Amino acid sequence: MEDVLVVGTGLIGTSVALALTARGVRVYLRDSDPASARIASSLGAGSVEEPSTTVDLAVVAVPPALVPDVLVRLQAEGVARHYTDVASVKARPQHEATALACDNARYVGGHPMAGSERSGPLTARADLFDGCNWVLTPTSDTGTETLNAAFELVAMCGAVPVLMEAAAHDRAVGLVSHAPHLVASLVAALLEPAEERLVSLAGSGVRDLTRTATADPDLWVDILGANALVVADLLEELSEGLDDAVMGLRCMGSTDEDKRSDGARVVADLLRRGQAGRARISAKHGTVPEQYDTVTVLIGDQPGELARLFTDTARAGVNVEEVYLEHSAGRMTGLVQLSVVRNLRKVLVTTLQNHGWRHR
Amino acid sequence: MEDVLVVGTGLIGTSVALALTARGVRVYLRDSDPASARIASSLGAGSVEEPSTTVDLAVVAVPPALVPDVLVRLQAEGVARHYTDVASVKARPQHEATALACDNARYVGGHPMAGSERSGPLTARADLFDGCNWVLTPTSDTGTETLNAAFELVAMCGAVPVLMEAAAHDRAVGLVSHAPHLVASLVAALLEPAEERLVSLAGSGVRDLTRTATADPDLWVDILGANALVVADLLEELSEGLDDAVMGLRCMGSTDEDKRSDGARVVADLLRRGQAGRARISAKHGTVPEQYDTVTVLIGDQPGELARLFTDTARAGVNVEEVYLEHSAGRMTGLVQLSVVRNLRKVLVTTLQNHGWRHR
Repeated sequence: MEDVLVVGTGLIGTSVALALTARGVRVYLRDSDPASARIASSLGAGSVEEPSTTVDLAVVAVPPALVPDVLVRLQAEGVARHYTDVASVKARPQHEATALACDNARYVGGHPMAGSERSGPLTARADLFDGCNWVLTPTSDTGTETLNAAFELVAMCGAVPVLMEAAAHDRAVGLVSHAPHLVASLVAALLEPAEERLVSLAGSGVRDLTRTATADPDLWVDILGANALVVADLLEELSEGLDDAVMGLRCMGSTDEDKRSDGARVVADLLRRGQAGRARISAKHGTVPEQYDTVTVLIGDQPGELARLFTDTARAGVNVEEVYLEHSAGRMTGLVQLSVVRNLRKVLVTTLQNHGWRHR
Repeated sequence: MEDVLVVGTGLIGTSVALALTARGVRVYLRDSDPASARIASSLGAGSVEEPSTTVDLAVVAVPPALVPDVLVRLQAEGVARHYTDVASVKARPQHEATALACDNARYVGGHPMAGSERSGPLTARADLFDGCNWVLTPTSDTGTETLNAAFELVAMCGAVPVLMEAAAHDRAVGLVSHAPHLVASLVAALLEPAEERLVSLAGSGVRDLTRTATADPDLWVDILGANALVVADLLEELSEGLDDAVMGLRCMGSTDEDKRSDGARVVADLLRRGQAGRARISAKHGTVPEQYDTVTVLIGDQPGELARLFTDTARAGVNVEEVYLEHSAGRMTGLVQLSVVRNLRKVLVTTLQNHGWRHR
């Protein structure tokens, strides 16, 4: 692949351009906002000149709702031999592009599963896609050369290609991203009108659960809109589970012994299904789920404590899979949770004890 | 306070006993399972002998449903001058104890806001409550000396006392703990029947959201049962928000332009209320919310990388408030998110750059 046109110089488009430029590809940049394209260019992402000949690949990196129109206009212009996009929803844009007489032989949909709460070219970086899943959604119309051009793009960005039908992709992101995002916002919304003394008891559980509620509402209205019916179906399924939970809890709150044990059975069943579903998410993406054990260590709240802890962890020769740090109220101390592969816990604990760490 | 009887030697009871023993208090241990009390005693938590005289305080550390009965029997025995408990739900046990003719002048309810997914005396530690909020729920009947005995207990455990009515406490834990716990389980349950290739796209968002779904279902049936009607009301409120979201999304999925923008307004409003609610949870418990900035650093996946990173972080003299580590699919690399107080971000970034770290 020698030359690529990137249309849309936001976070994703500029990061693609930076990755390709780093691999020696000649990259051309376009954006409806010329200032944005110039900023991306100044970061070393490519040139704002028009390409003098037909380029190998055009990457459409505009918001989902604009993809069909931009894609079809680029094809009419004949700017590239092959076309792809990076929108986070696939079926609806693909359907609309087809209705606008898109040349589907030369187009394959794509979605790099990376991103950030931030946006714009200044947040871009060449290694944004390092090790990420990059979904491609070819159809029976997609030409082999076009698909291979997309594979080359994915490889140059350091990502792992995953082939899926557009509808399956949209169900997947609905399930693991869009529906959970709305649920997090709904739970966080319960906190909005609550009294301060109630909210002040919030701990790490609800904080983790509502983390994504901090994201930009406008961006998410676009994303949810493009996958609206899939997300609506998922939330309806969730709503049935919620109705069961409410019914079970009301029974548990009754004075009738039989009713209480019926309710407890319903709630226990929900919790068990949740436990089973959670067990299906691996700690490392894309690898077989492993069994991890957690070691919780008490640290002082000054610079250097974490360094000292991780130096001692490295001494044990143990690889930490996940780290979670939590501070305590009113105290200059914190708890660090270290996840390690199950059979390495003992080694780590012994080493930490020998170095005087307090753990459990 | 010279001597204390701890009844129930699970995680909480044994941790209380360890903390008091460390402060020189003579602690007596009881458990319906004598083996559990002996284990706690062997850890240095106190004695399994019967107290020879009336002790200053009895701490009832049994499951919520058993508190009223145990409390009233201890009072009939006349074992202590003052009584408290540590159950995570307060109104119902308090109400039931009163019905059993509990001497409310000598009893005050308590709930230390600490815990773990683990249980049993072996997971206990003297500093479990260090810096935690410890809610106390006195009534107009509570004697001043009894309340002062509870304050002394809280102080000796290193915790921060918070006075609340029992009903307000139960609403608070329903809002920040019990209802979110069930929601996390319901979202995780959606993953249970899903195809593997859909689940395989799960990232850190849904993983954080469903973290608590790993906890023991039996324990949580007890907790939810004791606060059933409060949690049911909260979930019904959530259910209304969910219905609005589904309605909004269905409108957004329609072909009618007006309907679409109506739907978008509804969804945007939900997301904005979520953002406002989330903003009310401070990053450190019990302190004034601060503004944090995140620096994301790319690291290799071998022992020593985190140590090297935190050594360099310490060199910058910057205190890391939160750490989150995420591994990439199919790659031996990971991303570490470091949260630091806003005005320290620049210092940290410069230092990390000077030491060759790749960050954004």
